[in-house]
Amino acid sequence: MIKVVILGQGNVATHLWSAFHKVKTVALFQVDSRALSAIPVSDVTIIAVTDDAIEEISQQLGAREGLIVHTSGTVSMQAIHQQRKGVFYPLQSFTKGNFVDFSTLPFCLETEQENDFFTLQSLAKLVGAQTYRLNSDQRKKMHIAAVFVNNFTNHMYAIGKDICDVHEIPFEILHPLIAETAKKITNISPKEAQTGPAKRNDEETIKTHLEQLNSQQKELYSIVTKAIQNKQ
Amino acid sequence: MIKVVILGQGNVATHLWSAFHKVKTVALFQVDSRALSAIPVSDVTIIAVTDDAIEEISQQLGAREGLIVHTSGTVSMQAIHQQRKGVFYPLQSFTKGNFVDFSTLPFCLETEQENDFFTLQSLAKLVGAQTYRLNSDQRKKMHIAAVFVNNFTNHMYAIGKDICDVHEIPFEILHPLIAETAKKITNISPKEAQTGPAKRNDEETIKTHLEQLNSQQKELYSIVTKAIQNKQ
Repeated sequence: MIKVVILGQGNVATHLWSAFHKVKTVALFQVDSRALSAIPVSDVTIIAVTDDAIEEISQQLGAREGLIVHTSGTVSMQAIHQQRKGVFYPLQSFTKGNFVDFSTLPFCLETEQENDFFTLQSLAKLVGAQTYRLNSDQRKKMHIAAVFVNNFTNHMYAIGKDICDVHEIPFEILHPLIAETAKKITNISPKEAQTGPAKRNDEETIKTHLEQLNSQQKELYSIVTKAIQNKQ
Repeated sequence: MIKVVILGQGNVATHLWSAFHKVKTVALFQVDSRALSAIPVSDVTIIAVTDDAIEEISQQLGAREGLIVHTSGTVSMQAIHQQRKGVFYPLQSFTKGNFVDFSTLPFCLETEQENDFFTLQSLAKLVGAQTYRLNSDQRKKMHIAAVFVNNFTNHMYAIGKDICDVHEIPFEILHPLIAETAKKITNISPKEAQTGPAKRNDEETIKTHLEQLNSQQKELYSIVTKAIQNKQ
């Protein structure tokens, strides 16, 4: 039996709770981070709070026993002040109410001590997750990569929907293409998967497209087109 | 029995052939577009060649019987010179060798005559495809939307992979996030699905990210961030 305390009540904390409370070999406690004086002893304490609050919560915990980890993609492991420290970062954009399939979820793990790494690895595997060992710098870089593939990609979808809406085209026509684009790069590299007028250097089509966009869309179209052309 | 001629030997022609030759009620002929003098009579002639060649091929066909359609997302229906004209545009990025699931594929249809529309609709339904009625202008706009959600999104993946490669992070860590991002917008709008530092106006994180990017990535990061912020 492994005793786990989850500190926090946000999305990550809630999803971790949902996942771990099904595992019989985990004794789980979820604690409001404002009630730090009464936290049960545990093998692992997961500080699942906003990035800004991690260091302060760690300091308030004092000389706590066991392994203390945070769940942030961007905060350094050194924000944890206890001796046995680590990072237990589930790479996913958690939305409230959305079901998360932990069996396909990658956890990025970091610890100072080798034994602690195996503890975190076991814990992640209990919910069926994939684990990867990344140091704090790699984790930060991967978080930037995630901004591109998740947040910025979603904005490309948003522009696509705007264009559809203005011209009374059902956006659902594009759903299969969006799914296929995402699926393709699990088999071939994005560089190999690149298609379109920018890739073909089809200046005629590019010009025609630019004429039909509003000024903000036009700026974005030009920059991304240039970037694709420079990449070849 | 409906007689269909497919003109061309590129990706679209090949995929249409693969799909239709399984349908027992379709009599199918695939013809090299350089052998236009010997084309069998057909109910529907599908000109599945490059955009530039469509009009010329149509002219060479002369006063051909039946419905003549092209398969392009960008070319106007008026590029077809025969009297009964139409567009039979499968919205997908066909890659050679890749299996295409026609049952999830949207076909954008356009015709001048109402009866011809129903012919194209029946044809698309024979391979299990979804059909949408779009006029030439809508089709062109949708093609631009597709550039954003497919080509530009793929470039976001490419940058994500570049960042991973430089820092020796396996790109596969990001695969589940990419899949989830694509899936999410089939349930909620991209605007509602938007997350990340730009959406949160988290200037501190944005500044930190910019410092870690090369000049081209930085330019793109700034523009997309600004666009997301302006959208709120």
